[in-house]
Amino acid sequence: MTDTKIIYLDNNATTKVDEEVLEEMLPYFTKSYGNPSSIYEFGGRNSRAIQEAREKIKDFFGAKNAKEILFTASGSESANTAIRGILNADKSKNHLITTKVEHPCVLNLHKQLEKEGYNITYIGVNSEGELNKDELYNAVNEKTALVSCMYANNETGVIFPVEKIAEKVKEINKDTKVFVDAVQAAGKIKLDVQNTQIDMMGISGHKFHAPKGVGALYIKSSTLISPLIIGGHQENGRRAGTENVPFIVGMAKAAQMAKDALGIEATQVKRLRDKLETALLSKIYNARLNSSAANRVPNTTNIGFEYVEGELILLNMNDYGICASSGSACTSGSLDPSHVLKAMGIPFTALHGSIRFSLSRYTTEDEIDYTIEKMPLIINKLNNISPFQKELKELKQRKGFI
Amino acid sequence: MTDTKIIYLDNNATTKVDEEVLEEMLPYFTKSYGNPSSIYEFGGRNSRAIQEAREKIKDFFGAKNAKEILFTASGSESANTAIRGILNADKSKNHLITTKVEHPCVLNLHKQLEKEGYNITYIGVNSEGELNKDELYNAVNEKTALVSCMYANNETGVIFPVEKIAEKVKEINKDTKVFVDAVQAAGKIKLDVQNTQIDMMGISGHKFHAPKGVGALYIKSSTLISPLIIGGHQENGRRAGTENVPFIVGMAKAAQMAKDALGIEATQVKRLRDKLETALLSKIYNARLNSSAANRVPNTTNIGFEYVEGELILLNMNDYGICASSGSACTSGSLDPSHVLKAMGIPFTALHGSIRFSLSRYTTEDEIDYTIEKMPLIINKLNNISPFQKELKELKQRKGFI
Repeated sequence: MTDTKIIYLDNNATTKVDEEVLEEMLPYFTKSYGNPSSIYEFGGRNSRAIQEAREKIKDFFGAKNAKEILFTASGSESANTAIRGILNADKSKNHLITTKVEHPCVLNLHKQLEKEGYNITYIGVNSEGELNKDELYNAVNEKTALVSCMYANNETGVIFPVEKIAEKVKEINKDTKVFVDAVQAAGKIKLDVQNTQIDMMGISGHKFHAPKGVGALYIKSSTLISPLIIGGHQENGRRAGTENVPFIVGMAKAAQMAKDALGIEATQVKRLRDKLETALLSKIYNARLNSSAANRVPNTTNIGFEYVEGELILLNMNDYGICASSGSACTSGSLDPSHVLKAMGIPFTALHGSIRFSLSRYTTEDEIDYTIEKMPLIINKLNNISPFQKELKELKQRKGFI
Repeated sequence: MTDTKIIYLDNNATTKVDEEVLEEMLPYFTKSYGNPSSIYEFGGRNSRAIQEAREKIKDFFGAKNAKEILFTASGSESANTAIRGILNADKSKNHLITTKVEHPCVLNLHKQLEKEGYNITYIGVNSEGELNKDELYNAVNEKTALVSCMYANNETGVIFPVEKIAEKVKEINKDTKVFVDAVQAAGKIKLDVQNTQIDMMGISGHKFHAPKGVGALYIKSSTLISPLIIGGHQENGRRAGTENVPFIVGMAKAAQMAKDALGIEATQVKRLRDKLETALLSKIYNARLNSSAANRVPNTTNIGFEYVEGELILLNMNDYGICASSGSACTSGSLDPSHVLKAMGIPFTALHGSIRFSLSRYTTEDEIDYTIEKMPLIINKLNNISPFQKELKELKQRKGFI
């Protein structure tokens, strides 16, 4: 495998670091390596590099002030910082609302908070993966400390109307805070927090061609949080630890490039995603689109292959060098089917054989054509060894493939 | 300044990334960028790279099993994970012991825990910066959850007998856990946790020529902690977030190199440190060694220049391209004198003019000679503008310089 070509269609799991991003980071490892907190110029210049990066990330979020940006080491740290930070800063309310389809860093944290005595309401989605907004609004009460709702789902790509949600939540209880996990939206659609009621928004660099190990959290200037990592004065006392200068600088560069490339996402990336989606659905009789929601990020499609096993599909794709995933990388290793698809009520027959394809602006037409050529071979092979021959035959007839 | 040469004598603040470490990391940015949690080979190989790195870091700690190693994003995160992790895993005890001279990531966390209702005992040091061990032992009782004690002090380099302390603490209360912040010991003296009673030990990569933004925490296999960052299954469920593959691989390489170079620390680095120390004390009449403790890490010396101001000294050193610091980088920006030197009872007259010089194995004899040549010029210049002319004259006479 090491020497064969890689068709990388798992950009929601992680992305390649852009060469220009790497170039931007390199001087900060072996040349300009001073501690940004140091008084001398050799450190101070790195403090300025962080400040410039903060301005760029502010622009990426569409925030008002660079002081509203906190650098972290991951999207998970951003979410944990936001959620714990709000609860620890103000202990007067003990109710939280989130959705059933959040990333594990939000969902599992809420399960832990439940054990610690908080009341949690988990909001469901419809069969297309769209949020039951009214269910959410009905859940908000005077004890609601925080609503945490993702911007775009990592598995289906479905976009939630977070701006509208924040507005409505504040109408019901102006003291309820709103955290948006925008990890899967950043770099795919435009962020513009400034004119919204959203209090906090988290992103992760490695989802938009910066390295793994750096993230950011937008915190509206009027919103107070307690730090998750206590110690030195870094990040205005809100996150201790010597700053990861190269990755912060790299993420800022990647954010700038991603912002400039949003048009490419909406056109080229979307066209290739649609081409892949349409071809697989038309060529493979037991393929079903898990969400056809109108409002999806342009790079993601989630397709269920009925009566076959997801891990088997992925292993066969691996033989052709095609990388994709079932569920999120952060839950892989467990044999449970995706909590997102379960919440959508995807039939059991497709639940285990669902594959997420996620493209990037580096995905080529050739790669998509290759995938369109190989996927039917893979699925046909697996159909032949599936224990559900009767059901597959019926499906084939029903779909008009015989 | 940008173009002049840099004499970098602030290696306790941060270090240069070794070129070999950078080489080791490079493939993981733009080539082997798969998510380690992914099922396909392109991700799986990165999971194996992390596993190999874990083995190397295990060897660096002198631990028994690679499963005892948790990767983090900083020394501060390691300390916060250890301390909060113990307290959250077992809420039966509410007393903690630490020292007055810890790094802010331990000290400020304890101050926060105090606000949250924990009882904290802060142990002092003598005038050489050596720990009042008996004071510590006397403080241990049946309610003591945790003793946190640094291995080597970042400002003075004084080594605390952490192995003995752990042993004695366990004799008094076998259920009390012991956390050692080894950030300033790692790479300077040999770590060997395996045969000690220490439960947890934290390190930070950027103190031994790995990049800023990666750390590790040793957790003895019998010791249970709750995670600080909740989410995905990474790090055996003890720290969520996509792994920073390049930095983890880089830190392992740096650890291996540092382990191999411990002999150089004990000979070459120590010789240059001693040369610098002796020369400054003999050439500058108002210089005083803040700690002459026998047991110090080989790279650090802390010298007080009486009746002059530390920031002024540093700014003048900056003009010659010499980088050093007063206090720790993590507390800079504040005008308070060092809490470490205050705890040692360093006289007020030297407290504000104390400078830490910290070398590395990359420090050359030429650099030390240059510093020995320039420091008397700088201090003499500042002596001439000091408002304490009478006191300086008396000191000069007393020291036999007139």
